[in-house]
Amino acid sequence: MNTNLEWLQEIDGSLWLTENDRNTLKISYKLKEILFSEQSPYQHVMIVDSYDFGRMLVLDGVVQTTSLDGHIYNEMITHVPILLHPHPKKVLIIGGGDCGAAREAAKHPGIEQIDMVEIDELVVKACKQYLPDVSGNLSDPRVQFIFEDGIEFVKNRQDEYDVVIIDSSDPVGPAEALFTLDFYASVEKALKKDGIIVCQSQSPLFHQEILKQTFDHIQNLFPYAGVYKAVVPTYPGGMWSFTLGSKVYPIDANSKQVPNLDTKYFNAEIFQSCFLLPQQMKNLLK
Amino acid sequence: MNTNLEWLQEIDGSLWLTENDRNTLKISYKLKEILFSEQSPYQHVMIVDSYDFGRMLVLDGVVQTTSLDGHIYNEMITHVPILLHPHPKKVLIIGGGDCGAAREAAKHPGIEQIDMVEIDELVVKACKQYLPDVSGNLSDPRVQFIFEDGIEFVKNRQDEYDVVIIDSSDPVGPAEALFTLDFYASVEKALKKDGIIVCQSQSPLFHQEILKQTFDHIQNLFPYAGVYKAVVPTYPGGMWSFTLGSKVYPIDANSKQVPNLDTKYFNAEIFQSCFLLPQQMKNLLK
Repeated sequence: MNTNLEWLQEIDGSLWLTENDRNTLKISYKLKEILFSEQSPYQHVMIVDSYDFGRMLVLDGVVQTTSLDGHIYNEMITHVPILLHPHPKKVLIIGGGDCGAAREAAKHPGIEQIDMVEIDELVVKACKQYLPDVSGNLSDPRVQFIFEDGIEFVKNRQDEYDVVIIDSSDPVGPAEALFTLDFYASVEKALKKDGIIVCQSQSPLFHQEILKQTFDHIQNLFPYAGVYKAVVPTYPGGMWSFTLGSKVYPIDANSKQVPNLDTKYFNAEIFQSCFLLPQQMKNLLK
Repeated sequence: MNTNLEWLQEIDGSLWLTENDRNTLKISYKLKEILFSEQSPYQHVMIVDSYDFGRMLVLDGVVQTTSLDGHIYNEMITHVPILLHPHPKKVLIIGGGDCGAAREAAKHPGIEQIDMVEIDELVVKACKQYLPDVSGNLSDPRVQFIFEDGIEFVKNRQDEYDVVIIDSSDPVGPAEALFTLDFYASVEKALKKDGIIVCQSQSPLFHQEILKQTFDHIQNLFPYAGVYKAVVPTYPGGMWSFTLGSKVYPIDANSKQVPNLDTKYFNAEIFQSCFLLPQQMKNLLK
């Protein structure tokens, strides 16, 4: 196995993974072992087992999701838009190669079809085999895997989906175009007349411009727009933001019944309070 | 200035601080400069200027508070108990050497006296001079600095304080005794008949036993007990917990008016939702 990667070091006989994407802040994880390590046409894909976070998906040296906290991000990006829609039947997930969002969407019995469009088949292959805590049992026949560019896929869709979930990686490399107004406009067309969009919009602490820009784009395209928060321990800054747009249904979590979804982070109280934001975030989005 | 400390390294001509308190997870901060570095009778005290978090207070190599996010912890540990009390006049802060909790308490005009008992005078001296973003202007005549052991101080107090805030560092070294049932029982006696206690109770992800034990202690001593959360980016895991006990007043943030306190994180919505916990935390505290 190739361990000659810039983000891996051997220190005193132990293997460490160091995330260094900011150049001024490094997070280093002591590893038990490397379970999978391959280069895809798009990025380097790795599954490692760490002491503090269990198994982790690492793309180009950056931790994407872990056994310890992967459920938080996936539960929050999935259940919030689905529960705000009164009768979602067809869901599109763009990105989401760890399969966690598809897994959460499949917990809703009313959903009939989940299309998952991921550009990098290798990520799905690695997560299905080596990251079962996040990917779960994805033999659900309602999930269709489509391995192609989400941007091209969405361009050819019209009036088709109730909920679109944009589960992208950071806005560099293959995911950069998933943060543009053009792309969100394509998604708006791919949604039914009463559809709901949600996208991860980065850290409210370290990526304020991305968050502000995403919220502006969604606000331009959808009558109802809102930002909600979750705490994702392995993402820099701890707090993460999601931006949601809705064509018809107001963003009102308090009026909704929350079914038992067998979740570890999400519950009715988190749903009803996730749109309540710290003062600095409110000021940013004014 | 002594930079021959195990948590400081020079890499490619730049100075880095590495937190290594877990042995399996290291966080490294690139530094612009070291502003203060001295050994007190209790610990090594340092103020550094970092690229990502601005100035930081570092005790024995562990980051305690920063210019970027220090307000979050201090606003949350202070305003929640004070606002749950209908007429707080006398507040005791144990620990809190960064002066941030005293600064926040002084924002309430009804408070007449704030006693701050900190064992290590050097921490207060360093933060007052080099960490003004957190310590603020502490010339308020209501704040009394008392440099002695908080445990001994509390033993001699009875029926004196409306609110006691236990703003300790991690439960190792000098702060260990601040997490014991004996100490909380002393605080219970130092409180008036309708008093409120709050203490920081560590990470709900990495220190579940401490949180559970603290909640059990407070529940044993106070008719009303509750746990609330905040997101502190520089603490491992991002989410932090606070445990609150009340002798007479129910823990009901929804019934309270929230005055304008000139805060950056805290607001009415955060106050009203901070006791709503993720499902795993609820399960832990059952």
